[in-house]
Amino acid sequence: MSERNDVVTMAHGSGGRAMQQMIERMFLSAFDNPWLNEREDGARLSLAALSQQGDRLAFTTDSYVVDPIFFPGGNIGKLAVCGTANDLSVSGATPAYLSCGFILEEGLPMEDLQKIVSLMAQTAREAGIAIVTGDTKVVQRGAADKIFINTAGIGVIPGDVAWGAGQIQCGDKVIVSGTLGDHGATILNLREQLGMDLGIQSDCAVLAPMVAPLRAVSGVHALRDATRGGVNAILHEFSEASGFGISIDENALPVKPAVRGICELLGLEPLNFANEGKLVAVVSAQAEERVLNLLRKHPLGADAATIGEVTENPQVCLRGALGVSRQLMLPHTEPLPRIC
Amino acid sequence: MSERNDVVTMAHGSGGRAMQQMIERMFLSAFDNPWLNEREDGARLSLAALSQQGDRLAFTTDSYVVDPIFFPGGNIGKLAVCGTANDLSVSGATPAYLSCGFILEEGLPMEDLQKIVSLMAQTAREAGIAIVTGDTKVVQRGAADKIFINTAGIGVIPGDVAWGAGQIQCGDKVIVSGTLGDHGATILNLREQLGMDLGIQSDCAVLAPMVAPLRAVSGVHALRDATRGGVNAILHEFSEASGFGISIDENALPVKPAVRGICELLGLEPLNFANEGKLVAVVSAQAEERVLNLLRKHPLGADAATIGEVTENPQVCLRGALGVSRQLMLPHTEPLPRIC
Repeated sequence: MSERNDVVTMAHGSGGRAMQQMIERMFLSAFDNPWLNEREDGARLSLAALSQQGDRLAFTTDSYVVDPIFFPGGNIGKLAVCGTANDLSVSGATPAYLSCGFILEEGLPMEDLQKIVSLMAQTAREAGIAIVTGDTKVVQRGAADKIFINTAGIGVIPGDVAWGAGQIQCGDKVIVSGTLGDHGATILNLREQLGMDLGIQSDCAVLAPMVAPLRAVSGVHALRDATRGGVNAILHEFSEASGFGISIDENALPVKPAVRGICELLGLEPLNFANEGKLVAVVSAQAEERVLNLLRKHPLGADAATIGEVTENPQVCLRGALGVSRQLMLPHTEPLPRIC
Repeated sequence: MSERNDVVTMAHGSGGRAMQQMIERMFLSAFDNPWLNEREDGARLSLAALSQQGDRLAFTTDSYVVDPIFFPGGNIGKLAVCGTANDLSVSGATPAYLSCGFILEEGLPMEDLQKIVSLMAQTAREAGIAIVTGDTKVVQRGAADKIFINTAGIGVIPGDVAWGAGQIQCGDKVIVSGTLGDHGATILNLREQLGMDLGIQSDCAVLAPMVAPLRAVSGVHALRDATRGGVNAILHEFSEASGFGISIDENALPVKPAVRGICELLGLEPLNFANEGKLVAVVSAQAEERVLNLLRKHPLGADAATIGEVTENPQVCLRGALGVSRQLMLPHTEPLPRIC
């Protein structure tokens, strides 16, 4: 086995000295926090400290396999922190702790891994989230594609927050926090080598600071972040769980001209495009203005808009530019694999 | 994209209908529990219920990339449940909840996935652990090797348990819970096609029921499960964290004749071989007999034995059959990649 220091080798995943050195030099120094520095095989977290912040834990996980691993607006590491933290936020929780499992392909340049780890650490630090435990596996060249990352997250939900699709009521308003499809269009443009100078980048971001003020608003019923499957997938999840339908106004959808252009060129629908920093909120008509104002106060929510409402008719429908409404189906599959 | 139902296709990872159907038909029905069945993007766990069991959460993660994915004694799914649950147990925690992230290679037979998921569900059920949240990604053929699984686990540590390498004292006894290297030898025999009829199988098992009674014993200082890197890796971790050394008696090591045979044939050391159902305990001399008795009461601990003791001399040493002691080094790398 190679003793090279500039790429990941099988030795880095073996449980021997090479792995210990990589953990110390790269992960411990980047993610630096008291829980991780205990060097036990797992973190120990005070239940009293967690219980001060709320009455329920939120616990969620995602694996990240995005291709390419570097893209305008971020990389796979930033995505792995934001994605799982955002799942916690939209459940009403304050994100607190992340675990992190790396699967590395032999031959991955150490420089690439360092960039990914550094941006993970920076993103977590900015969001007040501690990466407290982790694991590294290395597989032979060709047995994985460069790097896969799994994160699992723990957050705490305050006692007075009860968001969930089961809370949705007929007449509720459907709000998105900003422009749709930026992440999907960015990856598509890179990967299909369309070579368009779109001037767009992934919207990958930690949503917690924008979401937290919404917890004080009565009439907020359900939030989800619209990642893989886009806003359309969320609308269908909400519809199925609540038994109601949702009617969306096509004219109201905030979409950047460049993203609209790529969609029209390829015959794709921005509602199906992945986002990595956008949420869908279902709120009472009374809460609509307050929620829009709170979202727009945050830079990530500047383009927040009401896009539709919850209906008795249990279908998800799209009202087009000419006022004609058609049923919006959930595609069998997304246009773009490995989007996140 | 293929519409085949007998293999995993890209559509199963797309966030569309195909993925929803696989989640419902395979994962929800196998892992069936109230948290998962809420169908939110993450589980919500009562902090009051957790706090009744102890004062700290243990939180840990591992990714599993074992090759081959099926082996005598288990499969990658059983390994993914046992491995993470055992990391919780040896920290002193009662394992409670697991997350589960699948990365699937396009073309994986559904029948294989079903076998893996079924054994995960059975193993978790037997151990009283709920798989409460999950994620599925599919990558193109050749971008991963069949299936990788990440699990993250949450457990609760009772208030009076304070196990950790920092508690280790000079004169403590080092105990292993059974025969060494069964998992490593099983995988090696399969993978290198040695074709030996060893009559051994992986020791992959949930250790929680054997570990729980040890929490009532004063003088138990530190536990670890000896997986990747074997007992040798644990001895070095204990030595480094405590500042003491450890002297092991080669004659005292419980090793099955078949495993010893494969080691001698290949010039390998059973102390470096991976286990998936064995722990190393460091306990006071006063606690030694009680711990051995408690371990031996459980079928998984029938071959428990004291193998050495903690020394002032800060090296890890092996006393051989003739009484001569030599320093035991931590290898730069393990002999066998993708052991877990």
